[in-house]
Order: sequence, then C-alpha cells, then structure tokens
Amino acid sequence: MELKFTKMQGLGNDYIYINCFEAEINSPEALAIKLSDRHFGIGGDGIVLILPSNVADAKMRMFNIDGSEGKMCGNAIRCVAKYLYDYNIVAKEELTVETLSGIKTLSLYIENGAVENVMVDMGKAELLPEKIPVLLSGEGIIAEPVTIGTENYEITCVSMGNPHCVVFKDHIDDLDLPKLGPLFENSPLFPDRINTEFIEVVERNVLKMRVWERGSGETLACGTGACASAVAAVLNGYCEKNVDIQVHLLGGMLTIRYTDDTVWMTGGCAKVFEGTINI
Amino acid sequence: MELKFTKMQGLGNDYIYINCFEAEINSPEALAIKLSDRHFGIGGDGIVLILPSNVADAKMRMFNIDGSEGKMCGNAIRCVAKYLYDYNIVAKEELTVETLSGIKTLSLYIENGAVENVMVDMGKAELLPEKIPVLLSGEGIIAEPVTIGTENYEITCVSMGNPHCVVFKDHIDDLDLPKLGPLFENSPLFPDRINTEFIEVVERNVLKMRVWERGSGETLACGTGACASAVAAVLNGYCEKNVDIQVHLLGGMLTIRYTDDTVWMTGGCAKVFEGTINI
Repeated sequence: MELKFTKMQGLGNDYIYINCFEAEINSPEALAIKLSDRHFGIGGDGIVLILPSNVADAKMRMFNIDGSEGKMCGNAIRCVAKYLYDYNIVAKEELTVETLSGIKTLSLYIENGAVENVMVDMGKAELLPEKIPVLLSGEGIIAEPVTIGTENYEITCVSMGNPHCVVFKDHIDDLDLPKLGPLFENSPLFPDRINTEFIEVVERNVLKMRVWERGSGETLACGTGACASAVAAVLNGYCEKNVDIQVHLLGGMLTIRYTDDTVWMTGGCAKVFEGTINI
Repeated sequence: MELKFTKMQGLGNDYIYINCFEAEINSPEALAIKLSDRHFGIGGDGIVLILPSNVADAKMRMFNIDGSEGKMCGNAIRCVAKYLYDYNIVAKEELTVETLSGIKTLSLYIENGAVENVMVDMGKAELLPEKIPVLLSGEGIIAEPVTIGTENYEITCVSMGNPHCVVFKDHIDDLDLPKLGPLFENSPLFPDRINTEFIEVVERNVLKMRVWERGSGETLACGTGACASAVAAVLNGYCEKNVDIQVHLLGGMLTIRYTDDTVWMTGGCAKVFEGTINI
C-alpha cells in the first residue's frame, strides 16, 4: 500500500503526519516503529494521525518511536493545526483538537495564506506537590532547597499535566545534562520521575532553557517544560503574569503567557516535505 | 523551487538522492547541510547527486552532513546503480559510475524488475605500510603486536583507497567503541588517522564486524571496512581467497570476495521513500 505523508516540525520536534480523513491506519503502533527509524525509515520523533472527531474539529493520536501512544505534545498539536488549515480540512482560524489530554483550543497566525504560528491553551498550572507529584509538603514547592546527587539545588515544581522540576542557574550551556538529568529523573523525591528544566534568566521576561525529559534525555524542545518554566519564573519573581515571556530553547523560541485561568503557549510550526512510502 | 528527491539506504547508510539528469543543483554543499538535518530537514547521512558523465554511464557526487564532498561510498554507489536502473535512466545490468575515486563497475541483481543487490568492483587492496599509511616497516602489517592506549593488540592494516586497521577479537558486542575507537584513530602510528574494524570470526568465511570510522565514530556499516576486514581475515588464515566471505555489520550483511586482481563487494540497496521539498 502506498501511503502519503507530510513531515512537519515545531521547534525541531519532528513527526510524520498522516491524513486519516483519507487513509485508514490499522496498526499505528507498528507503523510508528517502522517509519520513525532515521536510517531505515522516514525518520522522526514518531507519527501523528489526524482523524475526524465527534467532539472537536479534528482528533490527533500520536505514537512514539517505541510504538507507545502519547497523550499530547505542544509542538505536535501546533503542526496539526497548520495541517488542518493549510490542507483545507478545517477553514477556521480558531479550532479545537481532541487529544488524550482533553480538547485543546488553538488560535492560528496566518501569513501569505499559510499558518506560521499557533497559540495553544495549555491549561492550568498545578502547584500542589501531591498532584505533581513531588514528595515535599506545602502549598507549592518554590525555590525549595534540596540535595540531588551530592549537590544542593533550589527547585520549583509545576505540573502541566506532566511533572516538571525547574532549576534556575547561570551559564546553562556549560551544564553536563547527561550526568545531571538522570540524577533528577531518578531522585526519590519524584515518584513518577520528572522532567527537569535548567533555566538561565537572560533579562526580565526572557528565559533560556535546556530540558531533560524523563525517558528521552536532553531534547531540542519541550512545550510543557517551557510553560512550567515560565510559571516557575513568575513564582520566583523573574517574570510577570499576563505578559509575554520569551523562552529560548535549543530548537527555537516559544512565547508563554501565564494568567490566573490558564497558560498560553505560542510557537512556530513548519512543513518540511511531503512524500510517499510503500508500507 | 520545488525539488524532487528519493531517500535510499544501503545497510542503513542513508542518503538523499537527486536526479541531476533533470534538476540542476547550484550549491550542493549548502543543500547537503540543510537537507541532511534529521530534525529540521529531510534527514540523512548526506546527499548524492546523480549526473550525466562523459566517461561512464553516470557520475555520482556525494556531499556529507557538514557539506564536505566525499570521494566514494560503497553503500551509496549501490543505491546509485539501483536508481539508474529502476528509474529507467540506464537500462543495463552491468554499468559504470564515475566517482572522485575513479570509474567503478557495478553488476546488478534484479528481482521482479527492481534492483535488490549490487556487486561493486572495489579495486585492489593495498598492503604496503607506507601507502596505507601506517608508521611500521615491512611488506605488510599482519597480526603485528602494538600498544594502543595502555592495551596490547595484534593489528592488520589494509588500504582500500582509505586506511583501515583490523583487530580480531572475541565478543565484540561487549567492546566500548566510544572509548577504544578514538585511541586507534588518534594513535601516532597512523599519520592520516585510521578507520578501525573489530572483527569476530564466527566460522570459516563468516565474520562479524563493528567499525569506528575516522571523523564519524561508530557507524552501522562501512563498505571499504568490510573489504579490508575480509582481506585481513584471509591474510590471518580465517578466510579464503576466491570464495564468498560473509561480513555481518550492525546495518546488515555484505559479501566480499578477495581475488588476486581486486576485491568484490556485494550488498543490498533499497528505496525508502520519494518526496518533494521547497528549497
């Protein structure tokens, strides 16, 4: 069977997008493993199926390199919105996408008839330690002194549906993340393990971020991590609520706005190429 | 400009192939850097241009991830032969391809109208140490005891147009190549640095190989390395001349035949997908 696909990326987080308004995919788990291989397949961080939905404009299902199904990805859902608009499936500048983490609302920024940036409502930031979860007590974990490995750190913890530990540091380019990341990830403080963001405050409302994702290692970008970091920066007095906070990641820049109701994330998305493969 | 391309791989060594009988590419160096990126581009080990030739059926030019031009690649040239035949550019089962390492002759093995395997005349093996180059004296360097780092090894050295050092070892799966490879690569014995093959003799005429390529690190496959290893195995009495020697690499299997005149290499090649990209 000949399968049409589109390779898209958001901040270097690249997936293989398949239009399931047209094609039917029977074994997405096996297909994700096969197609994601960067030497023997198309190559990507996984596949994303774009399907009809009964409750939103479309539904996305994402499958990782190992075939497991992901709940949501901030970088992927922006590309889904671009796909829906650019391929004339949904002719709306504000649309909804059903995910395993609920229905997400997206606003499109269009230039020359194509979507360049997308704003996503990422939902409320959760600060209660037992909900993150982190094994420390209090209303919130803000600049809390802890020992990880043999070093002392001040950590701020936030859940954006997944758990994050944010550490503010100077000169994050020099950090040895392959060494530090696993110490945080596997610390007994975090029963579900943890995603860790190392943040350098560049200036007021401008952050630079490196991220260690649980199970993945250092990645080019993490949307929920950028949201959690902006929230943590507000809680620590480095940034403000209700204004645009720039977060510079290895893969590009995200703009985060933290309000009482929700966290807004705005970022780019790009079509890289279209192709066909025999499967 | 919309560019058509085909992604192909030989033993997992994957390049982006461009038909320059049709398209004209002005800055292949810049294009290679852009397209090879595995997150922001198509992704691959580089690009290969397939062009008309005045002296052979076609000419190949290859450009690496960093934009530098490569001379020849045994895994890429098999894919070039498949491309020429499968896309009806050259309707011959034995054909010639011009490369920066000279004109290569290839024989095609066709199944169901498509090329599945290709045999390449890889040229004569060079054993003289000053021609490899390796700073040891003699007619050939065969099972020569040397010290690399703090360990003692018996090395056999062969040039297939590029320099190789072959080490026979048991249990090569357990070797720490990221540690060992650079010690060989940067040893003062090898003025042009060296590609190092670690070879386990599975049975007579069957070898298992891991390779550390100078400048690249451990790779899935190295065609000249498989040739050099088969030659070294004959010189050490593990394999025979004029018969098929199986070399099992991480990316798949190559069959090598070492004769007095030349070294023949036979291996697979596959089209992965076709695509279009705006450049």
